[in-house]
Formats: sequence, C-alpha cells, structure tokens
Amino acid sequence: MYKEKGLLIVLSGPSGVGKGTVRKEIFSQNDAKFEYSISMTTRKPREGEVDGVDYFFKSREEFEQLIEQGKLLEYAEFVGNYYGTPVDYVRDTIENGRDVFLEIEVQGARQVREKFPEALFIFLAPPSLSELRNRIVTRGTETEDVISKRLQTAKEEIEMMDLYDYVVENDEVKLACERIKSIVVAEHCKRERISKRYQIMLEAE
Amino acid sequence: MYKEKGLLIVLSGPSGVGKGTVRKEIFSQNDAKFEYSISMTTRKPREGEVDGVDYFFKSREEFEQLIEQGKLLEYAEFVGNYYGTPVDYVRDTIENGRDVFLEIEVQGARQVREKFPEALFIFLAPPSLSELRNRIVTRGTETEDVISKRLQTAKEEIEMMDLYDYVVENDEVKLACERIKSIVVAEHCKRERISKRYQIMLEAE
Repeated sequence: MYKEKGLLIVLSGPSGVGKGTVRKEIFSQNDAKFEYSISMTTRKPREGEVDGVDYFFKSREEFEQLIEQGKLLEYAEFVGNYYGTPVDYVRDTIENGRDVFLEIEVQGARQVREKFPEALFIFLAPPSLSELRNRIVTRGTETEDVISKRLQTAKEEIEMMDLYDYVVENDEVKLACERIKSIVVAEHCKRERISKRYQIMLEAE
Repeated sequence: MYKEKGLLIVLSGPSGVGKGTVRKEIFSQNDAKFEYSISMTTRKPREGEVDGVDYFFKSREEFEQLIEQGKLLEYAEFVGNYYGTPVDYVRDTIENGRDVFLEIEVQGARQVREKFPEALFIFLAPPSLSELRNRIVTRGTETEDVISKRLQTAKEEIEMMDLYDYVVENDEVKLACERIKSIVVAEHCKRERISKRYQIMLEAE
C-alpha cells in the first residue's frame, strides 16, 4: 500500500533568537504531531542533560568517523565542539510517514537545503526585526551609530531569510509555537500533496 | 506609510459538501481574524434570514444592473436565482489590510481565480473522497455499479481540485475549521510576504 512520506521541518534562525526555547515549548505541549530529531554533539553534558534525550554525546573521534561515513545530515563546529544531525533517524522517520522536526543553526539549514530541497524551512525572526517595525512608529533617542549598526544587522538577517519558506516572528514564544504548528498543518493540506494521495488511491482501485 | 494588503480567502467545493456549515462554524468561533463577505441573491429570504446579515436580497432587475456595471466579483445562476459577490466590499477590505473570506460555488471560484489569481483557494473535500480512503482499507459489499459510479464522482472531484492551493477534508466540521484557520496563519508567515514587509521598512529608514 502507498505510504505517504512525512515532512522534514527545519527551524532555524540567527543565534540567540530563541530557537531552543521555542522548540522546547512546542514539544512540551504534547500535541505536536512531529518527532524531534535529537542532535549529536562532542561537547560535555551540562548538569541535568541526559544522553539520548538532550543530545547524543559522542567523542571527537566518534563524531569525525560519522562525518566520514556520511552519517550526518548536517553538522557544524562551534567553539571547538561539533554539533550535527544523524541522517538515519531522519530518513527512517520520514519514510515511515511521520514528520521530523530539526532545530539547527543557519549553516546547518543550508546543508539540509542541498540534501532535502523538499523540506519545510522555517526562519525564526529575532526581536531585532520586530523592533525595526516599532522604530518606525515610535522613534527613540538612540545615537546614529547604534541605529546604523542595528539596521546593518537587520539587513543581514533579511538576506538570511531567502533560503526559507516561512518566517515566524518570535515576539512571544507561545505565539511563535502556534504559528509553527499552523504552518505544519497547512503544509499537509497543500493541494499537490492531497491530490497525489487521491490519485494513488484511485489507481489502487 | 506602507500598508500591507489583506488576503482574499476563497472556500469552495462540490455542492452538498458542507461549505455553509463550515463557514458558519468558523465565524461563530469569534477568533477568526478575517471578515466574511456577504453574498447577494435574488432568491426570497427564508424565515429568520436577515438582509445584510445572511445575504443582500435584491430584485432580479437590480442584480442584472450590477452585473452590467461590473459590480460583481463573481456570480452564478441556480434554480432560477442569482447569487454573487459584491466586488467593492472585497476590494475595500483587502486594501485596508484585512482578510476577506468568501464561501462560494466552484463556478464562482473559477471567476475569482481569473480576477484575483493571488487569492488563497481552499477546496473543501467531500466525504465521498474520504470514503475512498476507507474503502481501500475495509472493502464493503456494494455492487459494481455503485462502486464505479462513486469512483467516477471521485475522479471528477479530484480534477476540480487543480484550481486550488489547499484541500481541506471535511471529515469533521471543527477539524475542517481548524485546518482553514491554520492555512490562513501559515499564509501570513510566507517568506515572500514577510521579507517584502521588512525590505519596505528598511527602505523607509
């Protein structure tokens, strides 16, 4: 019987935007219909972190071997530590028709885009961008220097978005989560997807 | 200042699918962030129906004059009565940045597609299509004749979908409403839309 593939949902955005907080909130609500793909890292577990829950903790040697074996969908090095996404879990879950949720850095998202162009890319927009909007309404008393630096950052962040299908403003964590869940629901209602499903059902008759 | 246009949301589907029920449920929930565009008709008000609430009730002469004046976004004739959508209300509301919701017949949706290709077209899929899915799992005892007729209808309905951006299965009214609201939320998060908004804000600086 025809089995529809799950979606690969990629949440990313500039560092410090609150991707982790939003991801944790989504999965704490328990009504998310997608599976979280646990990242792999070479950094030491922090207090309270559990192997296989927060991360898969690996040695540098193990991690580099996985890179060589092509076992990582994406990876990056930060402050001397590797972070990455094991590809097998992602592939297996999608093939089984369940949606997978990744929360990764922008460099990683770029790597996923190359390997899974059909994935759903969601950019979490930082408050700096929402502030841009406020600034126009209520002009503050910042110096020219602060303003021009802020605008430069905003420009760079807007350019970053180009890779993504959706932009979710992180003005409020709960709102951001609702928007992300709505995007996933909508994606499942896309005509191409449903029409294909029905076509296949008809052919099976 | 830059004012973003609202969305034109078009809900349609085969007659008898429950478009009216779904629309009423959406607007009874009071959390819908879009405005309902009241249709115009030449049929007589039924008991309890109020002019300007359920429909704008017009005479045949008035309606035909509006057609001639190009005042209708779409219209169709059913069992001797005209039904249509006044175009001014739709344009004004969108221009003011608010979303407008139309619930119309498939012929009407086709007319809107020509005039507003950028509108959001949602097809409400009838139970006959959901049943198609069930049939594959639990084969019934219908005669060949009933089955082949049903499959023919399903084929026609699937072809109808081609015009639409999204398909919402009307398996349960409340679920269908949630999906429609999610689609509207997602549409507002589309990168093109938000990226354009930020670009314009940057230029305004």
